Amino acid sequence: MGIRIAVAGASGYAGGELLRLLAGHPEFDLVAATAHSQAGQRVDAVHPQLTGLDLTFAQTTADVLADADLVFLALPHGESAALAAQLPAGVRVVDLGADHRLADSAAWASYYGGPHAGTWTYGLPELPGQRERIAAATRVASTGCYAATVTLALAPLIAAGAAQPTDVVVVAASGTSGAGRAAKAHLLGSEVMGDLSPYKVGAHQHVPEIKQATGATGLSFTPVLAPMPRGILATVTALPAADTDPRAVLAQAYADSPFVHVLPEGRWPHTAATLGGNSCHLQATVDADSGRLIVVAALDNLGKGAAGQAVQNANLMFGLPETTGLSTWGVAP
Amino acid sequence: MGIRIAVAGASGYAGGELLRLLAGHPEFDLVAATAHSQAGQRVDAVHPQLTGLDLTFAQTTADVLADADLVFLALPHGESAALAAQLPAGVRVVDLGADHRLADSAAWASYYGGPHAGTWTYGLPELPGQRERIAAATRVASTGCYAATVTLALAPLIAAGAAQPTDVVVVAASGTSGAGRAAKAHLLGSEVMGDLSPYKVGAHQHVPEIKQATGATGLSFTPVLAPMPRGILATVTALPAADTDPRAVLAQAYADSPFVHVLPEGRWPHTAATLGGNSCHLQATVDADSGRLIVVAALDNLGKGAAGQAVQNANLMFGLPETTGLSTWGVAP
Amino acid sequence: MGIRIAVAGASGYAGGELLRLLAGHPEFDLVAATAHSQAGQRVDAVHPQLTGLDLTFAQTTADVLADADLVFLALPHGESAALAAQLPAGVRVVDLGADHRLADSAAWASYYGGPHAGTWTYGLPELPGQRERIAAATRVASTGCYAATVTLALAPLIAAGAAQPTDVVVVAASGTSGAGRAAKAHLLGSEVMGDLSPYKVGAHQHVPEIKQATGATGLSFTPVLAPMPRGILATVTALPAADTDPRAVLAQAYADSPFVHVLPEGRWPHTAATLGGNSCHLQATVDADSGRLIVVAALDNLGKGAAGQAVQNANLMFGLPETTGLSTWGVAP
Amino acid sequence: MGIRIAVAGASGYAGGELLRLLAGHPEFDLVAATAHSQAGQRVDAVHPQLTGLDLTFAQTTADVLADADLVFLALPHGESAALAAQLPAGVRVVDLGADHRLADSAAWASYYGGPHAGTWTYGLPELPGQRERIAAATRVASTGCYAATVTLALAPLIAAGAAQPTDVVVVAASGTSGAGRAAKAHLLGSEVMGDLSPYKVGAHQHVPEIKQATGATGLSFTPVLAPMPRGILATVTALPAADTDPRAVLAQAYADSPFVHVLPEGRWPHTAATLGGNSCHLQATVDADSGRLIVVAALDNLGKGAAGQAVQNANLMFGLPETTGLSTWGVAP
Repeated sequence: MGIRIAVAGASGYAGGELLRLLAGHPEFDLVAATAHSQAGQRVDAVHPQLTGLDLTFAQTTADVLADADLVFLALPHGESAALAAQLPAGVRVVDLGADHRLADSAAWASYYGGPHAGTWTYGLPELPGQRERIAAATRVASTGCYAATVTLALAPLIAAGAAQPTDVVVVAASGTSGAGRAAKAHLLGSEVMGDLSPYKVGAHQHVPEIKQATGATGLSFTPVLAPMPRGILATVTALPAADTDPRAVLAQAYADSPFVHVLPEGRWPHTAATLGGNSCHLQATVDADSGRLIVVAALDNLGKGAAGQAVQNANLMFGLPETTGLSTWGVAP
Repeated sequence: MGIRIAVAGASGYAGGELLRLLAGHPEFDLVAATAHSQAGQRVDAVHPQLTGLDLTFAQTTADVLADADLVFLALPHGESAALAAQLPAGVRVVDLGADHRLADSAAWASYYGGPHAGTWTYGLPELPGQRERIAAATRVASTGCYAATVTLALAPLIAAGAAQPTDVVVVAASGTSGAGRAAKAHLLGSEVMGDLSPYKVGAHQHVPEIKQATGATGLSFTPVLAPMPRGILATVTALPAADTDPRAVLAQAYADSPFVHVLPEGRWPHTAATLGGNSCHLQATVDADSGRLIVVAALDNLGKGAAGQAVQNANLMFGLPETTGLSTWGVAP
Repeated sequence: MGIRIAVAGASGYAGGELLRLLAGHPEFDLVAATAHSQAGQRVDAVHPQLTGLDLTFAQTTADVLADADLVFLALPHGESAALAAQLPAGVRVVDLGADHRLADSAAWASYYGGPHAGTWTYGLPELPGQRERIAAATRVASTGCYAATVTLALAPLIAAGAAQPTDVVVVAASGTSGAGRAAKAHLLGSEVMGDLSPYKVGAHQHVPEIKQATGATGLSFTPVLAPMPRGILATVTALPAADTDPRAVLAQAYADSPFVHVLPEGRWPHTAATLGGNSCHLQATVDADSGRLIVVAALDNLGKGAAGQAVQNANLMFGLPETTGLSTWGVAP
Repeated sequence: MGIRIAVAGASGYAGGELLRLLAGHPEFDLVAATAHSQAGQRVDAVHPQLTGLDLTFAQTTADVLADADLVFLALPHGESAALAAQLPAGVRVVDLGADHRLADSAAWASYYGGPHAGTWTYGLPELPGQRERIAAATRVASTGCYAATVTLALAPLIAAGAAQPTDVVVVAASGTSGAGRAAKAHLLGSEVMGDLSPYKVGAHQHVPEIKQATGATGLSFTPVLAPMPRGILATVTALPAADTDPRAVLAQAYADSPFVHVLPEGRWPHTAATLGGNSCHLQATVDADSGRLIVVAALDNLGKGAAGQAVQNANLMFGLPETTGLSTWGVAP
């Protein structure tokens, strides 16, 4: 008898990927999956990639979830707090939403609006000391997809004094699954195929999370929607703070992290190599003309950027190897 | 100590997928992977999705392979026979190429040309009695991707007397990985994105394999290249031979096959739901206007159409559950 | 002072393409474009590809349209008849919807439901004698995108006695713009990219139009949604009725049609070559195994399949060369 | 009798787009198109989107070209200079390659290598005073696709003293046609679909051209290959030099430029809206967190980034309106 797992909000894209990972996890037993408008439907009617999974969506209520050892919350931003508050203290919770990530209530109010739900242990295991904090926690706020990508690229450089935190410039492009499964005209296939489209330019709600997690004090962050279902590619540039090889700093920072791969010199990350896995690929150089540090990071926004990350956190919370039930290999081409 | 596995021709797309599956297989130990021009390179330099896999391509020679318990051959069509002939009889072999699939030497000569290498046990486990034959074999010719798709859709209907074998019409579209990894101008991304392109219309080399495996005696087969990396969708139509529900025939035929899913009525297969897994999705109906039977089949040409199928065959050859190390779930979206 | 043109329902994909063509047409003056929920918005806020076009959507009313010399109706199926009935007899009308295409009221009732609006001159100029009928008409029902593709491929073969009309099998794949611009979850980019998905298998509403226009008496028609914004590729097979070269029949049928190109032997149509233009590419052969005739047709579903076709009809209705304001060249890659 | 035009190197993607534009140009007569390995083939065998164009590729020699009034050179970088030197002085030349763009021989040597061919009039008409210079020139070096995108976004801001030239950061993603038509494995559809892939990070050969054309003195430029055939989206950030509205500066700079559209506030450029046309879409803002200026530019790399730009230059060289034979509308979706 394994560890009992429930997923709230499992009808979306991150939820579907969570169910896929959980269905193959050797220690976790998927006991419940909930949805909103699709409650009552078979899971594989909503997620045809899980055809054969014998499970039906329940309504999203605390009662349905309270019986689990751990609950993943894959709800729209703003809906986690109320539900989490109703769960027994003994039930561990990993929130894939943004509600409990920010330590700064003012930043929450400014970018998201509404009351701040409070701050949980930040679920990015590769940050220094974070694996231990996650293992000791019962409530974990799993990192956002953009924040995970940029933080893995940048945090060690600022921490090591190799990069200045004051003038960081990031352009990050994401596959469309990052925009969710709600039917919106600008996300139709006809619109997104063949198209690169920036959005929320100049004021994206993930800025405070990225600053908090990376240590950056000044950040220009421009997200772009890219014509592919999955994947984030972030180009992170910062002014150098010392004459240090940025690649070496990253390689040392992640020497013991099984999912973060600093590529051999000359090879640059690209998103397709991370699809379906829990890995993040990194490379860094010093720009010949400007002298800026350039770090490129690639990951699967539904994998290491969402569902895979969440399972990695859950593994740590139960004392399992963090790689349990996760793959570092991508599905390509 | 697991079963020792080697892969010849592992630098192509089917080879890469094989390596991915083998790297996660609980009973198989990947001991060697060979390549031609890329021998001497690290596997993850050629397959960046396998970054972290600590293996280097060897030259493709019988010596390198002879030490394994089983060798997968993922070579270009026409190159398997010579290499297989040099392998010790005690080494099991699964050939992903076409060399040993056809029973009819004349058909080989007509569609492929050159001498026929002989006929091995046909590696499509879902055909009646085939699991036993594969389990008893030391040489297995794994089915081709188009043939697998069409055969799973059609063979039970002809065998059950539900469909006439005389006038079968198939249009099947494949993702571009089915065309291989050789650099050809017409396969450039600029050419294939946004494009549907038929090829080898009226005379495709897979016709004799499909006829042999399905029992069809007259077959119009038109393949189309589709703008996606993976996936085959086959639309198979045949004249009815009896007043039988084709869906029921298929459901009965695959009741004990873990990877073949006849979908609930009203749901039709689509390729994205099978990406990265070893499943085949099927649905069937009777056309309202023409009375023809229409069966649609979807699978991943590199999964159930190639590497997954090959591993499934290898599992059977070693007495393992056929699902070992394979997933029926797709990676979507 | 040119011919005054209005477009009703110009906020959809076919409407947007019409506006693009009309904005560059040397004889037509675009005087009004109407929309439903987007009335009051600038055209280029809805169609950013028309940035700089100084026009605002009006509400769709007969008053707005009655002042034009010709009105294009690009409305959802079922909405054309009521509006058309309110337009003065002197205003020419080209309907891009299905309302007035079918001659058979019973077929309309069976496939579309509701009362049949009546039959207008069928707007496929390449059918024998049709240019003259269109030139003489004041009401033209422009052909549907699938029907145009299949009819151009098949009608001459049946008419010439080269193909039997009794057992025609068609599989046709379309880009997603054919499914319209309404926000639907299954049309999200995340769903359609990387995916081939059949729909309405066994009973598609375009069957009666295709039968009427081609002369086919038995038709199995399976449509597939393909991962690209535009383009239709139809594979049409029929039993031969005579020992005739099907390519020669087509070449003769279209010798004087500037937009229909029977390709040189050995070259097969593909959709990307027709994107953005008003051309249809055709090729035909006799299948080596089955003896069936195979014709492949490619066109742009928004071009020759919708807006381009409609402009071609309008040109004829005003005695202009049918190529006026239209291009036979595609935009590729 | 129109102006006689020849195209050298017309078998590539930019060459094909040039032929398409020239085939529809009201003042230019296409009299010759040359190719290398495809000389002797019909143009439409190489560019199927031009099916029906009755022209055969000649060998690329000065003799073939010398009879034209203007020659477009669409040759690989490094091949223009030798051919141009053989053309009579009276033949106007527009070079789409990089050979004659740079004023700084040292920069040429450093980024391209080999001897510098000399500097021609820079073919970006929207730069101040440049239309006049182009009109007076007989030799014009048409701007590169990345340089056009970044220069249109940035040059007016530096010129107006609104942006500092010292620390410009650009991330620009391009469709795959920008990488050319040569068969390379990493450009296969199987590789590029679903993938974002940075390249030449830290040292791209377009840096000196961009600096020369924009006035930037420090530039970090990171190009990314995006999964679409056409389009460039550049995100350009610079430190502010004054408290100026960057959008207003751009709007004023391009008030009289028919192809450059500064979008209404709130609308951001995206590539699909520019496909097939000669337009560039721009928008700008001040980043809320960092205070950096952010400008986003989108254009079609084969249109305003190559062939369209070249035709625009040619129009000016013959005293025609710069819009002759060009469209500002995109083909979407």
